[in-house]
Amino acid sequence: MFQLHSKLAADTLSVGKLQLCELRLLNDSRFPWAILVPMRTRITELHQLSAEEQTLLLDESNAVARCLAGLPTVEKINIAALGNIVPQFHWHVIGRSTADPCWPSPVWGCGEAVAYEAKQAEQLINLLRKDLQIAN
Amino acid sequence: MFQLHSKLAADTLSVGKLQLCELRLLNDSRFPWAILVPMRTRITELHQLSAEEQTLLLDESNAVARCLAGLPTVEKINIAALGNIVPQFHWHVIGRSTADPCWPSPVWGCGEAVAYEAKQAEQLINLLRKDLQIAN
Repeated sequence: MFQLHSKLAADTLSVGKLQLCELRLLNDSRFPWAILVPMRTRITELHQLSAEEQTLLLDESNAVARCLAGLPTVEKINIAALGNIVPQFHWHVIGRSTADPCWPSPVWGCGEAVAYEAKQAEQLINLLRKDLQIAN
Repeated sequence: MFQLHSKLAADTLSVGKLQLCELRLLNDSRFPWAILVPMRTRITELHQLSAEEQTLLLDESNAVARCLAGLPTVEKINIAALGNIVPQFHWHVIGRSTADPCWPSPVWGCGEAVAYEAKQAEQLINLLRKDLQIAN
């Protein structure tokens, strides 16, 4: 049975469940950074998902990307599946700004996460839930 | 008309053309690092491609990933679309090894590229062409 990896659970806030993926928000207020985790066991690589699952992943990723791209600060979307540290397959969708502290470098390994204030996280989670039609 | 961005052209070697993408090999012998560039104009984000183009991109990406994952040194595939420096949409498929000089960090911004010896590049390009059924 699918269970979210403990490191992903510890570093992120829950947004909700989509058809394929559990949607999480990385607890780092420096960037709006969503993580999609397909609720499937034993997947470590994108090409291990079936064609149908890959289509669903992209549908869900596109919806998250469009939501983040609509934020006033976001100028570019970064997408990645790395998994060198957490083997459970997870898909990053990150809103970047030329004014963010890591621009134009990738976000991984850049400085330290700055946790959200409760209200700030709530606002972004509610926006994602609304755009992705996730029930509270 | 589609034209490969000059920085991508300068940093990579040509492998060939697939149905959607031009396939290139980054000229960095530290990792087998392929770059797929959809032959479409004015695309900067994954979600700007049509559903059909996204499916094609993933088909081509899966084939490249399976080829790289079959190399004896490769233990993990890293995938990303960043584009913070080169705006033309391009898709990275990178074969990683726990023994590579950047592991487990992402490859971007890690040290300097080490250009291939001609024979070494030729071998990898020929393998990609064979696996992806690209005519010479």
